[in-house]
Amino acid sequence: MSARIPPRSGIAVRLARGDILTVIDPEGGQVSDMLAIADGDPGEILSNGRTFDYEETLRLTTGARLWSNRSRVMLTIMEDTAPQHDFLLTPCSQGTFRHFYPDKPMHHGCFGNLADALAPYGLEADAIPTAFNIFMNVTIAPDGRIAVLPPGTKPGDFVRFRAEMDLVVGLTACSAYASNGGSFKPIDYEIAATTTAY
Amino acid sequence: MSARIPPRSGIAVRLARGDILTVIDPEGGQVSDMLAIADGDPGEILSNGRTFDYEETLRLTTGARLWSNRSRVMLTIMEDTAPQHDFLLTPCSQGTFRHFYPDKPMHHGCFGNLADALAPYGLEADAIPTAFNIFMNVTIAPDGRIAVLPPGTKPGDFVRFRAEMDLVVGLTACSAYASNGGSFKPIDYEIAATTTAY
Repeated sequence: MSARIPPRSGIAVRLARGDILTVIDPEGGQVSDMLAIADGDPGEILSNGRTFDYEETLRLTTGARLWSNRSRVMLTIMEDTAPQHDFLLTPCSQGTFRHFYPDKPMHHGCFGNLADALAPYGLEADAIPTAFNIFMNVTIAPDGRIAVLPPGTKPGDFVRFRAEMDLVVGLTACSAYASNGGSFKPIDYEIAATTTAY
Repeated sequence: MSARIPPRSGIAVRLARGDILTVIDPEGGQVSDMLAIADGDPGEILSNGRTFDYEETLRLTTGARLWSNRSRVMLTIMEDTAPQHDFLLTPCSQGTFRHFYPDKPMHHGCFGNLADALAPYGLEADAIPTAFNIFMNVTIAPDGRIAVLPPGTKPGDFVRFRAEMDLVVGLTACSAYASNGGSFKPIDYEIAATTTAY
């Protein structure tokens, strides 16, 4: 199946172990925040800290695994044409908008979109951690200072994941101004069942 | 008050808004994982992602604020003599020990120590996020690769926090081999009530 996530919105999908999820930036320059929980057990959730620890890098691309808070692999990155992703920053929320965009209209952000999309699967908003921010361009200076720049993705850039356990995955089309250069765009995704053993 | 946390153990303390918490490395070269939850409301918890976002740096020292998942300031760093801290990696757990030290005796790690210390205040183990790893020395290479090195602290180095809300704080004396150069040492802490307005 394939579908489009409209600008500034979010969805949730169930993946069986072995399913392949491809997240595509159809126009270029857009970000998609991704969360994952164990299907049927929202206490097990994607963890940036465990992932950084076990993968021993902040730069997660083809071959990297995304780990849960219980030290299990949730997703493997199978293919990746994007210049970068981010796993440092939490999804933008009403608090983020108040902090960074006090003069802009309020929006519940990727945080609110993920909370709404995953609530039916038992995830509480307080339990939403740092998402894997697909295509997000966060730079780290030698002194540790970070900056959020527009993504360097071209139209059609994508990242492909394999589900390593049964999951519910939340995905957004980003709502924050800085993350996507101020232009809100859609995100496309495709899901295919694995037919070969691995 | 002041107290010593024995090697490879953890404690929890309640802080009123305005209280000053000083965490001291008495021998040098030791790490203390710190978590904080809102007193009476464990759904509000320390967040590395919110902190990185609002402080716009990975290098948190004097003047930096540590933020909650609900975008409120929990603690401010008032004074800091240590060369570095880390806010990227999750507390070591049984999973961490299996992954990195399969030939070493199993230990429930800072994760287990924080879980035990904070359980009486309503925090569930699954909800434990990345802790603020006081004195921990994590380097980031230009290609994003990270490495855990022994802390550069000298005996008596300390970091002093002010509680910006009523908190329960968990603190450990680290249990992982890499974090402290393989020598398990105690951690000291002091708590003083603020007597001046601010």
